[in-house]
Amino acid sequence: MKTIEVKDKTLLIGEREEPQIGDHEVLIKVKASGINRADIAQKNGLYPPPPGASDILGLECSGIIEEVGKEVTSKKPGDEVMALLGGGGYAEYVTCPEFHAIEKPKNLNWIEAAAIPEVFATCWLNLFMEASMKAGDKVVFHAGASGIGTAGIQLAKTFGCESFVTAGTKEKIDFCINLGASNGEVRSKDIFSKIKDWAPNGVDIILDPVGGNYFERNLEVLGIEGNLIIIGLMGGAKTELNLGLLMIKRQKIIGSTIRARDEKTKNAVMTELSNKLIPHLGVGEIKPIIHQSLPFEDCLEAHRIMESDENIGKLILELD
Amino acid sequence: MKTIEVKDKTLLIGEREEPQIGDHEVLIKVKASGINRADIAQKNGLYPPPPGASDILGLECSGIIEEVGKEVTSKKPGDEVMALLGGGGYAEYVTCPEFHAIEKPKNLNWIEAAAIPEVFATCWLNLFMEASMKAGDKVVFHAGASGIGTAGIQLAKTFGCESFVTAGTKEKIDFCINLGASNGEVRSKDIFSKIKDWAPNGVDIILDPVGGNYFERNLEVLGIEGNLIIIGLMGGAKTELNLGLLMIKRQKIIGSTIRARDEKTKNAVMTELSNKLIPHLGVGEIKPIIHQSLPFEDCLEAHRIMESDENIGKLILELD
Repeated sequence: MKTIEVKDKTLLIGEREEPQIGDHEVLIKVKASGINRADIAQKNGLYPPPPGASDILGLECSGIIEEVGKEVTSKKPGDEVMALLGGGGYAEYVTCPEFHAIEKPKNLNWIEAAAIPEVFATCWLNLFMEASMKAGDKVVFHAGASGIGTAGIQLAKTFGCESFVTAGTKEKIDFCINLGASNGEVRSKDIFSKIKDWAPNGVDIILDPVGGNYFERNLEVLGIEGNLIIIGLMGGAKTELNLGLLMIKRQKIIGSTIRARDEKTKNAVMTELSNKLIPHLGVGEIKPIIHQSLPFEDCLEAHRIMESDENIGKLILELD
Repeated sequence: MKTIEVKDKTLLIGEREEPQIGDHEVLIKVKASGINRADIAQKNGLYPPPPGASDILGLECSGIIEEVGKEVTSKKPGDEVMALLGGGGYAEYVTCPEFHAIEKPKNLNWIEAAAIPEVFATCWLNLFMEASMKAGDKVVFHAGASGIGTAGIQLAKTFGCESFVTAGTKEKIDFCINLGASNGEVRSKDIFSKIKDWAPNGVDIILDPVGGNYFERNLEVLGIEGNLIIIGLMGGAKTELNLGLLMIKRQKIIGSTIRARDEKTKNAVMTELSNKLIPHLGVGEIKPIIHQSLPFEDCLEAHRIMESDENIGKLILELD
């Protein structure tokens, strides 16, 4: 099968044997594959795949079930799915546990469906399952125009919450507000005073891919019993922490990644998406936000766009 | 009514009017009142009572319901109760919301009942409600021989969990192991390497009253998806934090106090204690651990014992 291989921190088109399926797995013929920031880190040797995962990049795809393991009960060959992957999405075929693939809504094409699993699973896990997001909550998305940000803004809006964003350009902020964010501010020293203006009593949840250099100011704008969820370290890993303030405000700091979670947790997240997100996707109330879709062979250009932070929403690779 | 008043960071017997009850409150004639480390901090001006709370010390008591507010449905005069208080326990009478007082098990005397609310509510809230403790979990209690530690060890054992403790003396460690802890170590530089020996894959929960100078080593011995719950700052508030390790291990850091929580949360905690702890108290499977009970007038001596860290378990003040 055709693959994208990593060599010397760059990408090459390659060729491998198709992966073998386990008894509880499905084999998917990939139609489109989503690109995530984690792929860039993995390419650069900074984010090794978890034990047992494919060493091929790619954390999500859309496609058609080609074959099912002998214990699989929920899928059959020919099913059109979108899937959360531990790796292996940058290839013609990929395997995953049966419940990590969920039915593709009929109104989404392959490219759109490939833009769903990773960002919506990440948002669902962190907002609802980790931080118990409920109607009326105020949520901050740093990097609001990213795949995660654009998914989060829509989830917040659909489930009765208010969201505030930060992003790199005015165009991105406008896009986020148009998508449902209540307010936003271009990245600068001022963003935290703006968040304080928007939510004087503090926000309830911050989904943060920045880490170190936002950390203490994130806790300042986070309200009583608020949740700060660290999902990335674009601003470094080291920080100071005042436990006295953390106690007084009874706040939670949560380090979170989805890729290395156990199969059961991912089953639970994907089942929730299937039951609670797909109805909103099916009627177009929540939409995948796609910056650009490129042919599989243009993977280097797709990575370049993400690395240069030009994208609003997802970048997708298409297979023939 | 007779009270204990704070003046110039010391305690004096005083006299005040009885408190007035609100519509949803009960008036309790106090029989015995538990002493907590927070009382010492409040006496020293370091822990002001939350808005609306009595300025009299005392976070728990046992006693008899004297009067009920006109909307109260769950209690009546003459009921024997133990109560979680926002303050005011060092007095002959105290008020609290009706659901913060729960029925005293018949097999406990007044002194024993006064030792229950604060430490068991704190443990219940943090272990079960914040950290979702489940059978098989490994839990660390620093200050294992404290009121909280001795409550936590028994809860862990009763609910199928393993606990490890640190404490100031060999006598305290032996007491904790006798109470149900799997292992323990006298405070020294070595305690964290011991915890690593006992739980090579990391512990699931750490209930920590120390804070700053244990913080980074706590995170080191905490396992994947573990919870570090900060309930005190005896070792300082400032620390450094590596968010990279927090993310890789998907850990949670939770700042937690019970006193300033809203009435609804405290209702939920006390209702859980009433339903799930009292059956174990009633048959003597879980016991209040009492270091010493002293007459109300000996409050200074009671504080001295706690301040000198001599106690194993609770200190209680008795009213006539």
